[in-house]
Amino acid sequence: MTTQMTTQTKREIVLTGDRTTGKLHLGHYVGSLKNRLQLQRQYETYIMLADVQALTTHFHRPELLAESVRQVALDYLSVGIDPERSTIFVQSMIPEIAELTVIFSMFVTVSSLRHNPTVKHEAKERGYEDLYYGFLGYPVSQAADITAFKATLVPAGEDQIPHIEQARKIVRRFNELYAPVLVEPDILVGERLDGLDGGSKMSKSLGNAITLDASPEEVSMQIRKAKTDPARIHKTDPGHPDRCTVFGYHCIFRPEGSEDIRENCQKGAIGCAACKGMVTDAIEDVMQPIRERRETYKHRPRYIDEVLMAGTAKARSAARQTMGEVREAMGIHYFK
Amino acid sequence: MTTQMTTQTKREIVLTGDRTTGKLHLGHYVGSLKNRLQLQRQYETYIMLADVQALTTHFHRPELLAESVRQVALDYLSVGIDPERSTIFVQSMIPEIAELTVIFSMFVTVSSLRHNPTVKHEAKERGYEDLYYGFLGYPVSQAADITAFKATLVPAGEDQIPHIEQARKIVRRFNELYAPVLVEPDILVGERLDGLDGGSKMSKSLGNAITLDASPEEVSMQIRKAKTDPARIHKTDPGHPDRCTVFGYHCIFRPEGSEDIRENCQKGAIGCAACKGMVTDAIEDVMQPIRERRETYKHRPRYIDEVLMAGTAKARSAARQTMGEVREAMGIHYFK
Repeated sequence: MTTQMTTQTKREIVLTGDRTTGKLHLGHYVGSLKNRLQLQRQYETYIMLADVQALTTHFHRPELLAESVRQVALDYLSVGIDPERSTIFVQSMIPEIAELTVIFSMFVTVSSLRHNPTVKHEAKERGYEDLYYGFLGYPVSQAADITAFKATLVPAGEDQIPHIEQARKIVRRFNELYAPVLVEPDILVGERLDGLDGGSKMSKSLGNAITLDASPEEVSMQIRKAKTDPARIHKTDPGHPDRCTVFGYHCIFRPEGSEDIRENCQKGAIGCAACKGMVTDAIEDVMQPIRERRETYKHRPRYIDEVLMAGTAKARSAARQTMGEVREAMGIHYFK
Repeated sequence: MTTQMTTQTKREIVLTGDRTTGKLHLGHYVGSLKNRLQLQRQYETYIMLADVQALTTHFHRPELLAESVRQVALDYLSVGIDPERSTIFVQSMIPEIAELTVIFSMFVTVSSLRHNPTVKHEAKERGYEDLYYGFLGYPVSQAADITAFKATLVPAGEDQIPHIEQARKIVRRFNELYAPVLVEPDILVGERLDGLDGGSKMSKSLGNAITLDASPEEVSMQIRKAKTDPARIHKTDPGHPDRCTVFGYHCIFRPEGSEDIRENCQKGAIGCAACKGMVTDAIEDVMQPIRERRETYKHRPRYIDEVLMAGTAKARSAARQTMGEVREAMGIHYFK
């Protein structure tokens, strides 16, 4: 079900995206954006601004969606998503996704959605007692996103594994019921980045994130406040890197130096301030080019709109093609 | 919430339809088609071939849908639905309905659907333990059907009251969340026709129905077998009209003579055979013109396809207009 970057030799179609509920952060970068930069060089890549999925939790804040669609698009261009290589599109502008969602909903049981571990976890995290119908069904909608483009590979975080599994089941069921026109996707699991407060995943809603538009000063200050090994009071105390959020950042942002850090931390030979300084530099190596590209694009809102309109038109055409095959397979292509 | 035919003075937009799971029968005629014939003379009328809703229970029998779409369309023309007055369209060909379904699903709770009495009743009747997600959500889809055309009036059976109530709630919630662009529908409840076996509603799946394409011989034979007062053995036994299915048919098909029948039945002055003969004649008064029109249209499949294509194009244009207003209201009309 999961795929290693190195083992891909077949021709892939990549589909991924982000909910448009605010700016992206380093957790998105590490978990998925970084992979997309590689994938777009090799494969047909679709990147979705998931404004409909954003509604599952933010239906009462539609103004946020319109703002975020452009914010996230700017984040994409800033990290190096290349609109010549990646088709960036707006989910709500592809009616075929809604049509597929409705069709798939006919043969997915309520209990299979209720037992989806990620749906359960997110409902609990958000304190949802009485689920909204669309929230419960968002794995169905995600299956529609993926299959509309016959995507074979979805770069996403590990929390998405149950959804990809559900999408695969939906594809198999559809192909078995009607005709084999849909494609089972694989997931390419990205790395997980812990939030600044340690423990939980970096997440905007938990307030433990470094957004991709953070200034050098903000990054530096946020890392200075990041949680470290609580047992370590003095620089000479032996540290426990595996309990330290900042050591996790070393492993991700400067893996080549992380073993040194581990040793020196355990020996009490390096202090937290110095250690944080080193990881801040490594994060800045990622952030600096993002910041430069952002400077270019943030003054070109018209260009961003053009990218989204062109991407959406291209995505629409692919989705329409799939939907035609779906109708044909189901025999509901009445007037040929 | 419910409306009497006589009280309508305002300008109505009518929306109604039938699931395309087989031929229509006299129960459909009494419950809704008869009202539509009157409504189409006065009001803008949309009549939907509900093939997507048919999928909620018949997703594994798609071949039935394609066949039934044309069968039901033929039934419509046969009863006197006039394509010049009524817009007959195919639900699955209006993507805006799927889009609205997905949007509404964001703010309808799973428990409000679970507690919908008609959903509960139908799930029980069909023996569904683990509901399909789309089956649970079909009131949401129905709200989308209605609101896509800003329908104000839905002629339907009394079992549809909970769905119209739910649609009204969805409209109020949408208008309150975003902007007041959608319209609350009223229901125009049609008469209920019992099945030939007495007790339950006439229904194709219960095998107790007289289909609208039945021959005079079939009608006559079916009425001869229809259930009557079980306590009445001999013609001279006093009958209990209120326990007799056939007396119910008198009330509906020849109301002017039904009081006579009641008296004579209670006195034991009329036998079941004679009573059935009279109601058969009254039913034949309805069936005969339907049969004649059917003879004309059944040899014109191209014409039926043309009616459906033209109706669907017109309906699509109305739904697209509504969907534009919905996007505007939600602020997801990104590129104007």
